[in-house]
Amino acid sequence: MPADSIAAFYRGNKHFAVETVAAATPGPGEVAIRIAYCGICGTDMHVYHGNMDARVGLNRIVGHEMSGTVAAVGADVDGVVVGEDVVVRPLDSCGACPACVAGHRHLCHKLKFLGLDTDGAMQDVWVVPAHTVHRLPEGMKLDHAALIEPVAVACHDVRLSGLRAGEDVVVIGGGPIGVLVAMVAREAGGKVMISEVNPNRLSIARKLGFDGVNPIEEDLAAAIDTRTGGKGAEVVFEVSGTQPGVDAMTAVAATRARIVMVAIHATKPQIDLFQFFWRELKLIGARVYEPEDYEQAIALVAAGAIDADTIITDVSPLADIQKAFEALDRSPTALKSLIRIGGDA
Amino acid sequence: MPADSIAAFYRGNKHFAVETVAAATPGPGEVAIRIAYCGICGTDMHVYHGNMDARVGLNRIVGHEMSGTVAAVGADVDGVVVGEDVVVRPLDSCGACPACVAGHRHLCHKLKFLGLDTDGAMQDVWVVPAHTVHRLPEGMKLDHAALIEPVAVACHDVRLSGLRAGEDVVVIGGGPIGVLVAMVAREAGGKVMISEVNPNRLSIARKLGFDGVNPIEEDLAAAIDTRTGGKGAEVVFEVSGTQPGVDAMTAVAATRARIVMVAIHATKPQIDLFQFFWRELKLIGARVYEPEDYEQAIALVAAGAIDADTIITDVSPLADIQKAFEALDRSPTALKSLIRIGGDA
Repeated sequence: MPADSIAAFYRGNKHFAVETVAAATPGPGEVAIRIAYCGICGTDMHVYHGNMDARVGLNRIVGHEMSGTVAAVGADVDGVVVGEDVVVRPLDSCGACPACVAGHRHLCHKLKFLGLDTDGAMQDVWVVPAHTVHRLPEGMKLDHAALIEPVAVACHDVRLSGLRAGEDVVVIGGGPIGVLVAMVAREAGGKVMISEVNPNRLSIARKLGFDGVNPIEEDLAAAIDTRTGGKGAEVVFEVSGTQPGVDAMTAVAATRARIVMVAIHATKPQIDLFQFFWRELKLIGARVYEPEDYEQAIALVAAGAIDADTIITDVSPLADIQKAFEALDRSPTALKSLIRIGGDA
Repeated sequence: MPADSIAAFYRGNKHFAVETVAAATPGPGEVAIRIAYCGICGTDMHVYHGNMDARVGLNRIVGHEMSGTVAAVGADVDGVVVGEDVVVRPLDSCGACPACVAGHRHLCHKLKFLGLDTDGAMQDVWVVPAHTVHRLPEGMKLDHAALIEPVAVACHDVRLSGLRAGEDVVVIGGGPIGVLVAMVAREAGGKVMISEVNPNRLSIARKLGFDGVNPIEEDLAAAIDTRTGGKGAEVVFEVSGTQPGVDAMTAVAATRARIVMVAIHATKPQIDLFQFFWRELKLIGARVYEPEDYEQAIALVAAGAIDADTIITDVSPLADIQKAFEALDRSPTALKSLIRIGGDA
């Protein structure tokens, strides 16, 4: 355990300050992790833009897409050993609200998201509740392991869709989460098409072996109709967060299709409910992940099923976090930017 | 088999003409039914208002919520016997389209709805494909049996919801279908609340033993919150077809609630997709019924689980069909109006 820890604080108005703080020591039920890598999530970018100041405040260490090594273990912790490589499932639930009682702990009415509602992983040493820790298999590269959190989101989305091998899948939106959903869906046996308006992202999707359609250049519903012999897609993932994406999700769906709502729609879009009736469509909301999704994500990354080297488009040291956010904010080609903290340069 | 048949033709502009026609004889694979009673469906009321002229034309015999007795059987028909009391599941599918191939015959891309896309049951003798016929148990009252079609809609809705005994249920909209959905949900063990803005309908709902809330007088979400200890309802049926109903459906829902879209929304309402994400809600489109829903509906009516005498608020002879539609159109208290054709007066 180092005595000092370098940490990046979000101080409002697109500004991070990197400072040295005393490293926290783990209390009872807690674990201290020496962070190797931490990815920049879309949510972190929302924080950077000042959209979440009311929730996170102006002195917050963000970051939750991390990998690291156990540095110290507090009292009353079983099954977590110093020196092990781990990732954190950054959810802390109350255990007593109706959602927790119903077994939906990831939907806890008082859910704390670590790295937003508490300080996060953009620091040398991160102290977390022991129940959030998942052990990594021997030899997993820790930069690849920093993708496990977003891969777990994709695993959750695909699991809730009930995707069966051989089904046609449309992913609307080919950003980092869309591409990961597509990879997990393909791994589950889906025939995956990606709809993406950004030519750079579309070319990455195609490079990754997916059938890509640009809905600005081509009528998406007609394209899916042709590809599926008039049937439509059994599974649709709406990852775009846009009204055209919401319009497309019903237009490309087969009878009794399952449409998974992956995107976070802050406004209330208009939805073609008539199509829900007419074709008995199902809309499935999906939020974060459950423990089994983390275990599946770890297994997929370990098996090389996620093309991590294509998805990770940038790695910057913690000292350059400000530049890394600025670069990601203006890049048309970036997928996933990692911040290197204790990881190998 | 009578030689002549009295039939009511929709001739456009809220007008029916009752005329004598030669009774059709059943061809191969067909059955002729002497109609006892036929209910007036909300869809028939849409026809009456001229909203469906493009689909039904101006010389259409409507009606599909019927009961009757087999009068004659065509060639190549097995299992249907003259003299048996029956109802008709008024769906004729192509058997070859992607929906039929997927086993979703009730969602056939070329589905014919008997009584809209073909002539219906508002006549003495109705000829239908034999595969649409369901036999009734001995001794069922044929006026009650005319409710089987809408009860089957409710059975389909409740089945698709996956309702389990003990779950909290909110039915938004207490018209004929809402009340039937509520009855079937209660029969399945649900704790059912009905939200209804019309005081007459609300009082009928309460008379039928349901917990009723008028969302104009009381904050519905708060009322459901109080009744469920902050949990919300596990199952919601949106039967109102209105934007406030769509707003309410997400507001009253528990985490991972199933919301069944029973209403037909001709416009595209705004939906709080954020709540779908936040609470992992599921929206389930439901359309008509499948054979098993008809069998369940017959069993429920036979068992007296549907309070038919409260639901049937009017019975008129076929000669008075024009007056019956006019009366139903302006009545604030009517639930289900039946037309008596060959049934006992």
